[in-house]
Amino acid sequence: MTAPTDQHDSADLNRDRDLQAALRRLDETEQAARDRLFEFLRIESISTDPAYHHHCLEAAEWSAAQLRDIGFEASVRPTEGKPMVLAHWRPTDGEPKPHVLFYGHYDVQPADPLEEWDTPPFEPRLAEHPVHDEVITARGASDDKGQVMTFIEACRAYIETSGSLPVAVTVLLEGEEESASPSLGPFLAEAGDELKADIALVCDTNQWDGGTPAVTAFLRGLAFSEVTITGPARDLHSGLYGGPVRNPIEVLCGMLGELRAPNGRIAIPGFYDGVSEPSQEQRDEWQSLGFDEAGFLAEIGLVEPAGEDGYSLLEQLWARPTVEINGIHGGYTGVGTKTVIPSQASAKISFRLVPGQDPQQVITGFHQFIDQRLPRDARAHFNGEGGAPAVGFDMSSAPFQAAAQALQDEWDIAPVRLGCGASIPIVESFRNALGMDALLIGFALPDDRIHAPNEKYNLKSFVKGTRSWARILSAFAGMSDDA
Amino acid sequence: MTAPTDQHDSADLNRDRDLQAALRRLDETEQAARDRLFEFLRIESISTDPAYHHHCLEAAEWSAAQLRDIGFEASVRPTEGKPMVLAHWRPTDGEPKPHVLFYGHYDVQPADPLEEWDTPPFEPRLAEHPVHDEVITARGASDDKGQVMTFIEACRAYIETSGSLPVAVTVLLEGEEESASPSLGPFLAEAGDELKADIALVCDTNQWDGGTPAVTAFLRGLAFSEVTITGPARDLHSGLYGGPVRNPIEVLCGMLGELRAPNGRIAIPGFYDGVSEPSQEQRDEWQSLGFDEAGFLAEIGLVEPAGEDGYSLLEQLWARPTVEINGIHGGYTGVGTKTVIPSQASAKISFRLVPGQDPQQVITGFHQFIDQRLPRDARAHFNGEGGAPAVGFDMSSAPFQAAAQALQDEWDIAPVRLGCGASIPIVESFRNALGMDALLIGFALPDDRIHAPNEKYNLKSFVKGTRSWARILSAFAGMSDDA
Repeated sequence: MTAPTDQHDSADLNRDRDLQAALRRLDETEQAARDRLFEFLRIESISTDPAYHHHCLEAAEWSAAQLRDIGFEASVRPTEGKPMVLAHWRPTDGEPKPHVLFYGHYDVQPADPLEEWDTPPFEPRLAEHPVHDEVITARGASDDKGQVMTFIEACRAYIETSGSLPVAVTVLLEGEEESASPSLGPFLAEAGDELKADIALVCDTNQWDGGTPAVTAFLRGLAFSEVTITGPARDLHSGLYGGPVRNPIEVLCGMLGELRAPNGRIAIPGFYDGVSEPSQEQRDEWQSLGFDEAGFLAEIGLVEPAGEDGYSLLEQLWARPTVEINGIHGGYTGVGTKTVIPSQASAKISFRLVPGQDPQQVITGFHQFIDQRLPRDARAHFNGEGGAPAVGFDMSSAPFQAAAQALQDEWDIAPVRLGCGASIPIVESFRNALGMDALLIGFALPDDRIHAPNEKYNLKSFVKGTRSWARILSAFAGMSDDA
Repeated sequence: MTAPTDQHDSADLNRDRDLQAALRRLDETEQAARDRLFEFLRIESISTDPAYHHHCLEAAEWSAAQLRDIGFEASVRPTEGKPMVLAHWRPTDGEPKPHVLFYGHYDVQPADPLEEWDTPPFEPRLAEHPVHDEVITARGASDDKGQVMTFIEACRAYIETSGSLPVAVTVLLEGEEESASPSLGPFLAEAGDELKADIALVCDTNQWDGGTPAVTAFLRGLAFSEVTITGPARDLHSGLYGGPVRNPIEVLCGMLGELRAPNGRIAIPGFYDGVSEPSQEQRDEWQSLGFDEAGFLAEIGLVEPAGEDGYSLLEQLWARPTVEINGIHGGYTGVGTKTVIPSQASAKISFRLVPGQDPQQVITGFHQFIDQRLPRDARAHFNGEGGAPAVGFDMSSAPFQAAAQALQDEWDIAPVRLGCGASIPIVESFRNALGMDALLIGFALPDDRIHAPNEKYNLKSFVKGTRSWARILSAFAGMSDDA
């Protein structure tokens, strides 16, 4: 779209006026927004426990009603499991606008152990926090109801002040995020056309610290396999056969003990093919964060970083691939002793991948690694394999740059470009099913105790989260004008 | 005891006359002996299943009645579990005689899977066998009722012909051999004085093949430990922590993969201290057996012997120590994937020992082996430890020599001096509780399918087994005369 400069300037002015109005509205109605969030938090929408099914339905209806209330066309769509909430706000002025898809989830984790909560998990309240001033405590406060409401409240403030949103918005709220999203794939396949937007905004991640926003820019990929080593045709008495018979547990241990070289490099053929070093700029940025490695390790009872030589802890987590043995099993594992040489032993292995690695090639390399070490009279069998490549967002893209500037405007500090060591399935789903990139912006904190007793969400995260989304929506509209 | 030569000759003549009468009696009453064994086999004395408790009591009473019938002073002694049958035959002529303690067990393994039996497990019958001519099929035929009756029938024939036994005999029949003998220790402690004899005769082992008897002369010992490696303080998400955090499964695998050097030697400090090489004579004897290594391995689905370089398969099983990982467990082992870095991983390890090795020293060496390889931030914890030394019988002892000659007289071939890769707990119990050595002579065969469907005992083993015991009892009496 090309526009004469004066119209451009005038559009900019209008956009800024609308934004300032929305921000003022957010400040003035903060208490009402908080009340709405508390209403949402009182619904016990635990998706993993069938006893709470009707609470999940209630949460879906409640969110749809919220969206309808501010002018979205909202519906609760049945699935085989918990319903999806799908809502659209379409521009009324006929102007073409960027279209964003906002994603969040209305379901929460179970609250037990209940006795470890200081106050009941579904009775939200404001509490003083030793580090973060005021926090909202309740199950789901951070994961993900508080984060969902940052976005919906931004839309409400915009519509209530300007009668309109600066971009076209679709909202998708899922009710099974905490139970592995079984209905998401089928729903994306079925409703894909309705969901397709220019970019997805996923609000289920962290900021860097209480005063610093973040955009998650790297997600490691995953490849996984289960290897079973078979030796003798049946379990044997270790007295009557021990010595001349190769023990499959020992064979398996011998192999897995060689997965990593002493310097921490992974010894699988071709494993590092296509892997790039993090850029010096990126390394410097992460270095400058002053990440507390000792504190991170102390929290899990450890003292020193292990892993690959020559990389900081954050670099290892965000920009380097790894292999993990997630489970191993063989022989007798009950109480006491049983002197058996088992016929089989197996291990579940997974790889965290970085951009450039192909999950299938990694699995093929793992097969080679095992096969090369397989002694005579032992066989290897692989199953349960799969994976997804890593995601590295293009940080020079217009949406990334626009969102980063908007966050800086709100927080007075540039957002940190975080990595995330884990994959986020929704990002892959949007990529694979809808061919759509995502921006991962959230206001949670590592100490929010998600999935644990006394979950909290900083009040500041909530308040500035709503304001951040208002700014990002405005910035996206500007990005369109500049395009 | 010193005796003039003429008395000595006359005692020899009398002893031989009595033996020949007993042997004739065994031949003439073979059918009746077989009928008695079948009666015994019809009792469903499964000790592992409480539903069969009264059958176990019945089997105990039946055996006591058998012994009483031929003149033993027999009683059924209650324990916390199944009762012991204890019976004594004391010489009536006042002559001091060697005293033997015979050990067997009246309990049997469960019979399931029932559908795999060709005929019902508790309806004994004679069947044609492709290799062994006639065999007795029933649960317990070989393990251990058939073997128990070889001894009792020998005593019966002796007493029915000479009115006496050539040695003093105590019989101990246990009812919990198939369920780990929980009452044996307490009973040995309580009734030790009644049980103490010059030597124990344990009839629960194999002959070499259908035509060759054997004495089991080596029993490997056992040492066991369970090691648990602890890394992080709790289970971690492998995406969020994988890389810089040491995975305890990987640590454990790395250690256990080094237990054995490429030449099969065990890499634990001091492991071979005190271990002697088998004598050249013993190696030659075993070599001359023409053991079918390929057949042994084929039966368990394997092709080539593994283990320690430079030792035959039998040497490895009978005269070399080994280490086995009996079980390993860590992380997620259910269906599908769970990308966890577990806090702990553990393995159950056992060692088969040979004479000269001290179980406690082996366990201490294992601790050193683990501790030397323990990286920072990992801890090792050991529990469930114990063991018993190996047993090597003195093959030059008078009872060993006497029994070997008696077996050769019956079978027309010298008995093979077998090793047994496994420990036989009763031997250790007799050694430790009563300070008494044991002779392990049995007539079972490796293809008797003990603990499996269609268990059998060769009719020839039964018949020549009864005759063998008659000869051994006589030989022990002669040994006394020569002493």
